[in-house]
Amino acid sequence: MGSRRTLVGGSGPVVGTVHGELVHACAQFGGEVVVRDRGESGARSSYDLVLRVAVAGDSGGIGPGHGGVGDLGGPADVGELGAEGFVIERADETTFVTAIGQRGLLYGLFHVIRLGENAFRGTRAREAHRPSTALRMLDHWDNVAVHPVMGQVERGYAGGSLFWENGRARQHSERVRAYARLLAACGINAVSVNNVNVHETEAHLLTDRIAEVAEIAETLRPYGIRTHLSVTFAAPIVLGGLTTADPLDETVCGWWAQAVREVYSVIPDFGGFVVKADSEGQPGPFTYGRSHADGANMLAAALAPHGGTVHWRAFVYDHHQDWRDRSTDRARAAYDHFAPLDGKFADNAVLQVKHGPMDFQVREPVSPVLGALPRTRVAVEVQATQEYTGQQRHACWLGPMWSEALRFRPDGEQHPSVGDLALGGLVAVANVGDDPFWTGHPLAQANLYTFGRLAWQPAADPHRVLDEWIALTFPSASERLAAGLRAVLHGSWRTYERYTAPLGVGFMVQPGHHYGPSVDGYEYSPWGTYHFADRDGIGVDRSAATGTGYTAQYARPWAELYESAASCPDELLLFFHHVPYGHVLSSGKTVVQHIYDTHFEGVEEAEEARRVWAGLADLVEPAWHARVAERYEEQVRGAREWRDQVNSYFLRKSGIPDARGRTIY
Amino acid sequence: MGSRRTLVGGSGPVVGTVHGELVHACAQFGGEVVVRDRGESGARSSYDLVLRVAVAGDSGGIGPGHGGVGDLGGPADVGELGAEGFVIERADETTFVTAIGQRGLLYGLFHVIRLGENAFRGTRAREAHRPSTALRMLDHWDNVAVHPVMGQVERGYAGGSLFWENGRARQHSERVRAYARLLAACGINAVSVNNVNVHETEAHLLTDRIAEVAEIAETLRPYGIRTHLSVTFAAPIVLGGLTTADPLDETVCGWWAQAVREVYSVIPDFGGFVVKADSEGQPGPFTYGRSHADGANMLAAALAPHGGTVHWRAFVYDHHQDWRDRSTDRARAAYDHFAPLDGKFADNAVLQVKHGPMDFQVREPVSPVLGALPRTRVAVEVQATQEYTGQQRHACWLGPMWSEALRFRPDGEQHPSVGDLALGGLVAVANVGDDPFWTGHPLAQANLYTFGRLAWQPAADPHRVLDEWIALTFPSASERLAAGLRAVLHGSWRTYERYTAPLGVGFMVQPGHHYGPSVDGYEYSPWGTYHFADRDGIGVDRSAATGTGYTAQYARPWAELYESAASCPDELLLFFHHVPYGHVLSSGKTVVQHIYDTHFEGVEEAEEARRVWAGLADLVEPAWHARVAERYEEQVRGAREWRDQVNSYFLRKSGIPDARGRTIY
Repeated sequence: MGSRRTLVGGSGPVVGTVHGELVHACAQFGGEVVVRDRGESGARSSYDLVLRVAVAGDSGGIGPGHGGVGDLGGPADVGELGAEGFVIERADETTFVTAIGQRGLLYGLFHVIRLGENAFRGTRAREAHRPSTALRMLDHWDNVAVHPVMGQVERGYAGGSLFWENGRARQHSERVRAYARLLAACGINAVSVNNVNVHETEAHLLTDRIAEVAEIAETLRPYGIRTHLSVTFAAPIVLGGLTTADPLDETVCGWWAQAVREVYSVIPDFGGFVVKADSEGQPGPFTYGRSHADGANMLAAALAPHGGTVHWRAFVYDHHQDWRDRSTDRARAAYDHFAPLDGKFADNAVLQVKHGPMDFQVREPVSPVLGALPRTRVAVEVQATQEYTGQQRHACWLGPMWSEALRFRPDGEQHPSVGDLALGGLVAVANVGDDPFWTGHPLAQANLYTFGRLAWQPAADPHRVLDEWIALTFPSASERLAAGLRAVLHGSWRTYERYTAPLGVGFMVQPGHHYGPSVDGYEYSPWGTYHFADRDGIGVDRSAATGTGYTAQYARPWAELYESAASCPDELLLFFHHVPYGHVLSSGKTVVQHIYDTHFEGVEEAEEARRVWAGLADLVEPAWHARVAERYEEQVRGAREWRDQVNSYFLRKSGIPDARGRTIY
Repeated sequence: MGSRRTLVGGSGPVVGTVHGELVHACAQFGGEVVVRDRGESGARSSYDLVLRVAVAGDSGGIGPGHGGVGDLGGPADVGELGAEGFVIERADETTFVTAIGQRGLLYGLFHVIRLGENAFRGTRAREAHRPSTALRMLDHWDNVAVHPVMGQVERGYAGGSLFWENGRARQHSERVRAYARLLAACGINAVSVNNVNVHETEAHLLTDRIAEVAEIAETLRPYGIRTHLSVTFAAPIVLGGLTTADPLDETVCGWWAQAVREVYSVIPDFGGFVVKADSEGQPGPFTYGRSHADGANMLAAALAPHGGTVHWRAFVYDHHQDWRDRSTDRARAAYDHFAPLDGKFADNAVLQVKHGPMDFQVREPVSPVLGALPRTRVAVEVQATQEYTGQQRHACWLGPMWSEALRFRPDGEQHPSVGDLALGGLVAVANVGDDPFWTGHPLAQANLYTFGRLAWQPAADPHRVLDEWIALTFPSASERLAAGLRAVLHGSWRTYERYTAPLGVGFMVQPGHHYGPSVDGYEYSPWGTYHFADRDGIGVDRSAATGTGYTAQYARPWAELYESAASCPDELLLFFHHVPYGHVLSSGKTVVQHIYDTHFEGVEEAEEARRVWAGLADLVEPAWHARVAERYEEQVRGAREWRDQVNSYFLRKSGIPDARGRTIY
């Protein structure tokens, strides 16, 4: 804020946070903050920045000369701004941020921070900003008790849990507070604090250990973040001592209603539940012959009187599949389970759908479920934690991938995008932990930020978002540093794709931990994740004509595009079709030569990124630089391992040599 | 013993055990036992059985009419009987067992028990029995503290540890006493009580926790069993606070000497140390630029004054191998490391060599190390715990495999066998735990028994040993039961071989836990365990002419036999040669058809064994029968999984269909 004078208008806990942020900034950089509750007056010319919460008809004497928000006009009408929107404009040497809700003011403040000096230059026509969806959420897969196999954070690559330590909620919440601030700056407003796989200890968070959740909620609340909880569907049995968890059983419904009442008695703004049911061993309504709508609606009914939401995950499939059976297709499962239930879910039930039909692979088509339930509130789930994309040891900026998914139009070009359809919100599996750099790989912070900003505005250009992240992370970044960061991040997702599983086929990872290559690692497993490579060809026939029929789950333009190997986009070819190694891609290369080429290129790109990063040593704080440099060593090693294993596998299998005669083992 | 009268002559703790065994038997079956120390006299006709410890020249008034052992004559001369041998004969309605040492008497007693009623029929010419080697040992890979990955017992498939529970030695030693008795009945006389991978907690057993080892030793001693300990080579650093563990450093030698003195002060008959050094991450002399002879001799020197032995494992290889490098051959490693050290080891240092060059696969050639160190005391190590042979969920009686190895003659037919050469003893990795059936799979008890008996007499016919086990385990076994047990066990090793990795190629197991198939599981790993299958062929070229040169580690007859794919035995072909799938075996089948056929046959054999076992339900104690039946379900399931994965893998890779048109996926 420099040495500027700022006026904060409004009151309440989140306004208090805005004020606190400004006081903190002034303590650091100079300047002055004045708080004025509604009704008081002040000379407007004496402030460089005015942030205020307004109500309809309240002009408050502050504004660029045309009254209060009552006449904001157009898309910035009061009603449309909502609780989180804000208006920004600059006139007469004062920058005005006006919001209807306290949270809007907080987001307005962070917007000013993003603008930096530009916020205080010349004049600025009024712009209204509001999030595309009311729910922008992080799901933490954190365990309270360290799991013997999955550890403290399931699929966590950033140290321990931010919330849980030594078997209970962290006692000193400074780190959690800092985290809440970080999330608010990204635009995130909801956090689920425990793993969707709810183990025994964690089940109790719902009841006798709710006070610990309340402690966390207390810390998150001033930053406009509501707290959610993952619960086990079997809670009435596990915690309540009932003999059933049947969602149509009155005693069960009563048990949930009472449990929810008690949750709200200690967390009045509790967000709701996240539920992974009938999935990978978790209990669910199928046990009782009930549908997933029955299950979700029971919880929705318990939450509704209090304003809570149930997030019901659509990640339901047979994880005891027989690899011999080529007719069963895991990619079909979510659609087959949930599309018939459209219109049957309660208003406060959100169906949370992974962006792809499988499981966060580096390349998947967009899930057909996202266009298949027009009468259901759907949330899109992405995975910020890099389970299948380098586990925060490899740099892999996922912005372009998420953006592609969010801009996908399930019904064709003239129809809404996934981002438009995600009325239930955008959710990311969190990638943070108690690591000093938050995300293990410092560059993975960009994924967290990008997710938050895309959740706010799914149509945003991810490259612009990345530039924001660069400017916020390195406030005095030279153009050389910014260019270097762009160079190593812009293409990093494609680079990771090049040296790992080719052409959308997915997996080929080491079983269990999912790090590093194992081409056949899941080929004969019960997990439904196969590539079917033999000496002649590779890929999964998911066509309607000769395959599993998965393509028919898409609306016409996409169903037609994917149905034929000739029209299917190269990058998804092996997801949809089994083709000979000699099949010629639209790129003009054969499949096997594409595999060789991309794997050599991917390694070269990783090596180049390492080189670029090394050249930035004089511009980045040494510890930060060293951590990234160390990760690049591992990335290059890992990329070479991927290259050599994948290339050797296909040379051994196909017998077709590399056209360029490079070394394949 | 029926209701017979028995005289026990001699004194001492192990004689006390003999007496106790007889008293126990009489309490159960009737009869009477008299103890008479040397010098006393008794009417010999009044006893059915006389067991006595004799000394040279002592006729003791007891014997079949030709005086004491002083004139036993021939191979049964006093000196040759040794501490563990005994003579048995029957005349004038009395059976005489005479030994020089107390342990000999104990083994004589168990011999009488094995003979059963036959011991008391007619007359019996004197037979002298003595073990082929003085050291018949079980190595327990038991951890004191449950290891986060490896559990309580590393590669243990029979529950928890018999020795360690809740982080310390078991308090109630009845089970350990029963175990000691079981081992003595098998002829085992040495036990190492902790894992060769010595973790932090277990390192302390050598010093501040030696009292717990002494407790175990106390329980084992009355059954003639000496206790050994696995120690870490880094003990002087880890426990002693020294800055080095250099075996040529005087302070280090002094530290070990003092540590050993303290061990013997509490365990006067302590057996010695087992050491896994410079192996799979364990510390060793290489750190200090010293040889393994230097390392072993330092410990041998510390143990020598007290009569202890160091067992130094030859399992040293590079476990960070690059799979791309086809010139490095793990099979060569033990020979390359140890053959040059022949003659350099102290007398009380034993080089403990795995029977095969790799790691306890279902089929390996005999290790060339076993014939390569004529001036070194070598022990042969086998693995009773079924790490790679079905993990005690599959029935796999290993007697024939061990017997083949022990009867192998490294220098050719006119020369000594491995059993003859194993002057340092026979060692098995234990397969027991606190499971109620001792070994998880009740039929795996046969492996324990067979090991003990082969250790006593390596040339013994394993099928005769199995019959002993059947008779001892089912004292009233009908011929139908005995025939059924033979039917399910005799061929079980070959059955397991048929449905797992073919033709000696090894591995193809799931990484880490090693249970179940994964054909490429270790193919691109750093462990040196590859099959090099491509679309044309499979196998490892270990020939001297074109391969790794491993065949040249054998003496001439074997080197020549293995060098050529034409003469190499079928069952080892892929261990020694890389051949096309169409290569015709001496069986007349192609390699790929052999793979298909054996995998179908193996499953059929497992199904047949399950059927045979089901037919024995009326003859076996229900819980025992049910446990085995349950294991057969899993074995059949597992065998089918092996069959289908292996067959599919090779069909996909070779493109050659099954000649008999069976289903391959």
